[in-house]
Amino acid sequence: MIDVDKSRFRVKPGGKVRLSEYDPADTSLMPDRAKADVKTQKDLLKLQDLQDRFYAEHQRALLIVLQGKDTSGKDGTIKHVMRGLNPQGCTVVSFKVPVGDELDHHFLWRVERAMPRHGHIGVFNRSHYEDVLAARVHDLVPKKVWQKRYDQINRFEQLESELDTVILKFFLHISKDEQKERLEERLRSPRKKWKFSPLDVKERELWDDYQDAYEDVLNKCSTKSAPWYVIPADHKWFRNSMVATIVVEKLKSLSPKYPRPKADLSKIRID
Amino acid sequence: MIDVDKSRFRVKPGGKVRLSEYDPADTSLMPDRAKADVKTQKDLLKLQDLQDRFYAEHQRALLIVLQGKDTSGKDGTIKHVMRGLNPQGCTVVSFKVPVGDELDHHFLWRVERAMPRHGHIGVFNRSHYEDVLAARVHDLVPKKVWQKRYDQINRFEQLESELDTVILKFFLHISKDEQKERLEERLRSPRKKWKFSPLDVKERELWDDYQDAYEDVLNKCSTKSAPWYVIPADHKWFRNSMVATIVVEKLKSLSPKYPRPKADLSKIRID
Repeated sequence: MIDVDKSRFRVKPGGKVRLSEYDPADTSLMPDRAKADVKTQKDLLKLQDLQDRFYAEHQRALLIVLQGKDTSGKDGTIKHVMRGLNPQGCTVVSFKVPVGDELDHHFLWRVERAMPRHGHIGVFNRSHYEDVLAARVHDLVPKKVWQKRYDQINRFEQLESELDTVILKFFLHISKDEQKERLEERLRSPRKKWKFSPLDVKERELWDDYQDAYEDVLNKCSTKSAPWYVIPADHKWFRNSMVATIVVEKLKSLSPKYPRPKADLSKIRID
Repeated sequence: MIDVDKSRFRVKPGGKVRLSEYDPADTSLMPDRAKADVKTQKDLLKLQDLQDRFYAEHQRALLIVLQGKDTSGKDGTIKHVMRGLNPQGCTVVSFKVPVGDELDHHFLWRVERAMPRHGHIGVFNRSHYEDVLAARVHDLVPKKVWQKRYDQINRFEQLESELDTVILKFFLHISKDEQKERLEERLRSPRKKWKFSPLDVKERELWDDYQDAYEDVLNKCSTKSAPWYVIPADHKWFRNSMVATIVVEKLKSLSPKYPRPKADLSKIRID
């Protein structure tokens, strides 16, 4: 068994993360791709067993938040790590620009409604963090509004966590060069072209602003009950391996248990 | 490539199905378990590719309805066939006894709300058919109410189908002996005990009533746009293989396509 000290990627509460100090191409924890892939496969099998117990237990929920710039691999992580979960106990929610009813409420309203139910694993593909990322970078709300949101998010997550939703947050960290390659690949590939939006190019011009905004998120909103992990994501196999490991270890630490039968089964006879 | 004539299991519109004429242990279409398992694995890979296109296309939805008596393998089919789907494009809804708000509306209200969105594959673990199954067998509504529901269901499904939801319905057909074994297994197994409910024994006593109610469902509600399949389900591997085959063939016949890019990509340069 390979022991991976994934805590290296966990952002300490009140930390002083500088993203420039994290290498997006870092694979030092698991440099051999073949071994990493084998470990990922084993982790996915463990995940199936753990999810089965977690679903049966029906007492707590697990929320996985995925954030990262365009092409950082949010969809890919879902496809390669969350595929293999039993879809009966897994819900993926993609957050887009808020519209309609969502605009008639505060920014956390639609998030509260999307929280996973007991026994479920919920995955947020983007999240309430866009309200201090895109909303900040594009000046969608005044600074005095978004500045308060870090604390509001912390209080919201602390409450959810106290009410039995375990929260893991992954920032998929890619380099600007890797993003260029992935955008060019999108332009070329018949299977990926449809995902390309000219807006992606506009967003890329704001790279440094996003980097600053992400640093604030990581430094202000990584808490004991809802930690952020900075996942080096230039190598997809490494990213998958790390996310799978961290999710498995978290679920294992919760020791989910099959509940006791609802009734005394000893006298039951089936005719 | 093994060619499977799964149409043998499709109930013809206005048919005269007698369940006693369907052998729940039938495996004649694919008698070799090893070969069937290989084919299922291949089908699951095809399903990934087809789902990817279907999701990208974002024009239609696919609804898979699973019905069957207790222990017939609804959960197992989801676990073994739908696992492997990308959960980002798959939503499973389990229908239980209606409660709260659901009781303030007609029986199809909660079903309409649970329909899969464009590009998604929705799975109903039980469905509106309980309103002509459990509701009928337990006299929950007067006969003159449930009798009208077959036609109401047909009209509902026809409308949904016309509005681009493709519908497949599977009745997982097990024998009374196989149910006995599975219930006894549930009583014994530490991983399954929690699923056992003394009500299952009560339901089993109504076997013949359910059989009649299912025959009416199959004969009255298998339409061209929303066909019922009777899946021999005493052998789990055969059941999985048949469901996977039918879903793959249906998706393939829809030829989902990656959409064109949203803009002219030829002049785009990434800096």
